[in-house]
Formats: sequence, C-alpha cells, structure tokens
Amino acid sequence: MTRYKAIISYDGTNYAGFQIQPNAVTIQEVIEATLKRLNSGKPVTIHPSGRTDSGVHAVGQVIHFDLPQKRDVEKLRFALDTQTPEDISILSIEEVTEDFHARYLATGKEYHYHVDTGKSPNPFKRLYAAHFRYELDLESMRRAARFIEGEHDFSVFCATGSSVEDKTRTVYSVTIEEVGEDELLFIFKGNGFLYKMVRMLVGTLLKIGNGQLPEDAIQRALANQDKKMTGPTAQPEGLFLMKVDYNGEKKCHK
Amino acid sequence: MTRYKAIISYDGTNYAGFQIQPNAVTIQEVIEATLKRLNSGKPVTIHPSGRTDSGVHAVGQVIHFDLPQKRDVEKLRFALDTQTPEDISILSIEEVTEDFHARYLATGKEYHYHVDTGKSPNPFKRLYAAHFRYELDLESMRRAARFIEGEHDFSVFCATGSSVEDKTRTVYSVTIEEVGEDELLFIFKGNGFLYKMVRMLVGTLLKIGNGQLPEDAIQRALANQDKKMTGPTAQPEGLFLMKVDYNGEKKCHK
Repeated sequence: MTRYKAIISYDGTNYAGFQIQPNAVTIQEVIEATLKRLNSGKPVTIHPSGRTDSGVHAVGQVIHFDLPQKRDVEKLRFALDTQTPEDISILSIEEVTEDFHARYLATGKEYHYHVDTGKSPNPFKRLYAAHFRYELDLESMRRAARFIEGEHDFSVFCATGSSVEDKTRTVYSVTIEEVGEDELLFIFKGNGFLYKMVRMLVGTLLKIGNGQLPEDAIQRALANQDKKMTGPTAQPEGLFLMKVDYNGEKKCHK
Repeated sequence: MTRYKAIISYDGTNYAGFQIQPNAVTIQEVIEATLKRLNSGKPVTIHPSGRTDSGVHAVGQVIHFDLPQKRDVEKLRFALDTQTPEDISILSIEEVTEDFHARYLATGKEYHYHVDTGKSPNPFKRLYAAHFRYELDLESMRRAARFIEGEHDFSVFCATGSSVEDKTRTVYSVTIEEVGEDELLFIFKGNGFLYKMVRMLVGTLLKIGNGQLPEDAIQRALANQDKKMTGPTAQPEGLFLMKVDYNGEKKCHK
C-alpha cells in the first residue's frame, strides 16, 4: 500500500460541500469515483484536511488516500486532473509515509474571505464574494479583528452541528486588505478553525464595521460566550480555503 | 421622449450572447423584459455598442434606450440593476441627447482576452479564460502582435456571417501581459473590431507562440488575405468587452 498526499483546488459553486452525502453531488464523491476508475474499479477513500461547506471554495485543500501500488505521481495527477470535472483541479500529488494524515497532522490553515463592496454587485464576483452594499469603517473592523488573534475558546463562533469537543483554537492573524476599489479581503491564519467559524467572524466584523455591533463585540462574545455579540454567518461563496500547513512548514505563519 | 446611455457589465456564461434570438436566453431579452416592467408594460428596445457572442463577457458594454419620460437616473439604475439577474449589472445610467447612438457613435473599443497557461486548468478561470497548456514564446507573440497594429483590411480575420461591408479597421495597440505565474492577458484597443476578429487574432497569436505558424503569419494573412496563415477562433469565455469610447474620450487610446 502506498499513501499519497494531493493538493487540490475546486470551485464549490456546484457542489453540496466536500463530504459525501445522499442525493447531492459532492467533491469527495466525484474524486473518489475517478480514483476508483484509476484503481481497477476498487473503491478508494479520500481524507481531507477538513470538510468545506456547500458553496465554499478551495485553492489549496489537502487530501490523502491509499493505493495498492506505487504510481508515477505526475501520471496519476494528470489522469485524476483530466478525468475530474473542470471545476476540480489536482495541483500536485506526492508519495508520503503511511503515518501521514491530512486532517490529524495539519498544523495550520489559511482562509480568505472576499467581500464585494461595490454599489452594484460585480457579476464576476457573484460566485466568489459576498456582496455588502452598506457603509463599513475599515479601521474599526481592523481594531476589532485584533481581539480574534491568540488562543481562545471559540465556542460562541462555532455553528451547531459540530462534534468537536475542544473548541479552543489559536488564531495567528486576521488582516483585512482593500483589493482594488470595491473589494475587501479578510485573511485568517490559525492552527485550526471550527465549523463555520470564519464565516461567523466575518459576519460579526461586518456588523461592527457597519456600526450595528460595538467595536469590542468580539472581545465580549469570547469573554462571556455571548451570542448576542455575534453577527450572522456570512455567505459561503466568499470563503476560500487557501492552504493547509503541516509540521515543518510553520514559516508560513509569520 | 428621453434617451438614456447605460454602462453595463455581464457574465456571458449563461447567455446565448447579447442579441435576442428564439429559444435561447440573451442579455438583450432579459434587460428589455425588465425595462418593460419599469415602463408600465410598454416595450423598450435597447441598442448596444455591438453584439457580444455566446459566452463572451462585458465589463463595460454601452447601450442606449428611450423612455417616454424623464427619470431620476440613479433610481432607474438601481431598479434595473436589482431587477435583472445577478450576472447582469447596471453600472451607470445617464441622460443623453436624442442624437446619441451607442453603436454608430462609438469611436473606440477595448477588449481583453485571458489565457490560463497553468499546467492544470484553474477551476476559478474556467469560465473566464481559455486554457492553453502548451509552450508559448511570449516575445515571438509580442513581435507578431505589432503586425496587427495600424489600419488594415481585416477580412481574413472576420468570421463568416458578418454583414459588414467595409472590413477596414484601425487597431491602436495590442499588448500581451503576464498576470501572475499562470495567465496571459491580451489587450486590444482599436476603433472597432469585426465579427470574432479578436478571438481569431488570439487563436493566431497562440499558434505563432507555439511555433505552429511563422512569426510573420499575421503580416502574410493581412497582405494576401491568406486564411492558411490564421489560427482557430479562440474560445469565447476568455473574451471581455472592457470599454467603449465615444467622441472626446480618445485620451484612453494612448
């Protein structure tokens, strides 16, 4: 048996998220069906660094899977890349040791969230950004974002439906950049993120920026697990899993 | 009667081009249906600077139309923008004199063509760029592009089906830029372009860059109207109509 690590990218628009489920097309299902064909019809299970939700995108998702024999990794990558639909891309495949695990060994993740702030929603961003047409105080949001950084119990920013017990995570940095005239880019780096945590944090930051929540709302939400100090979950289409780090790659965390 | 000029943007992916036709959804049909609702049910015809083909996008298409009465242009823009689908955006509307005509008075146009040159096609560019995975000699393409500039009879770069008689056009400039690691951007500026002319020129430049046509293929194609010296028509999804100039806006043409 040989274990492979792959970096994959996908446009989540047309999928009901990563994980296999009945009556809906998912990333996992499509990739596993292709791997099965490439494995003489024998099923192959893929394991991601973490699930992504319906409509959420990935630029650098990591998965691992096992095949009974050694393969030429570039041939395998090409076959998998060209036999999956155009909205899924296999960027790289490498052979790894059998103790590699895409989820358990992940030491850090980076997410981007795009917000289209144009007066009129940009047609080319409609599937890749949330549109927010109201006033935003960028400096206020940046000050509020400081409260996210560090080690916290993020339970109040975890959607129901999560089976994770320990909800303590360390967020290395949250930055908010202006991209062109009409776009904000939120960059989250941390050792891990809870179910819908990034989207709930963005929804809260937007409410703070718009003056509907106080600037210290996140501090208060975390200190008292106070749901009233949180905003709505921002739409899935703005969210991109950019990369996943493993041991020894911590240099990316600044 | 009051005439209005509007700048509109659309993602052409889900449309059979601009112009109304039976049994297919077009940009014109969708905008006219919305304008009709905003005009007490009376039909309104829109006139574009030029048609765009199925799958082609626009960032700054210009249209004009007439309404029986004066309107607050921002209210009209907002109504039209919010009542059209998300892949069509109405960027601005202004009142113009009755002699304004979006097509006849256009003095220049700018088109962009995006080519994804990544080893693996980028899922996020699949609807907005053509994928070209083979070797390209950028400098050779840039030298070849010089032959496009100036006033020429571009008949050999006009697809059949055009009813235009005079096929002489002036191309102000053709530039090819590298965007990031895996993308080429072709920028065409000229006083006008024939049916599928930009896509035929891009298809020819790619063949030149890949060594399948000589570097002077465009010069020879134009000099002798020699179809054998032209490449295929590049895919529609890479093409964007960026802006349309009218008298007095020539400053944009560098």
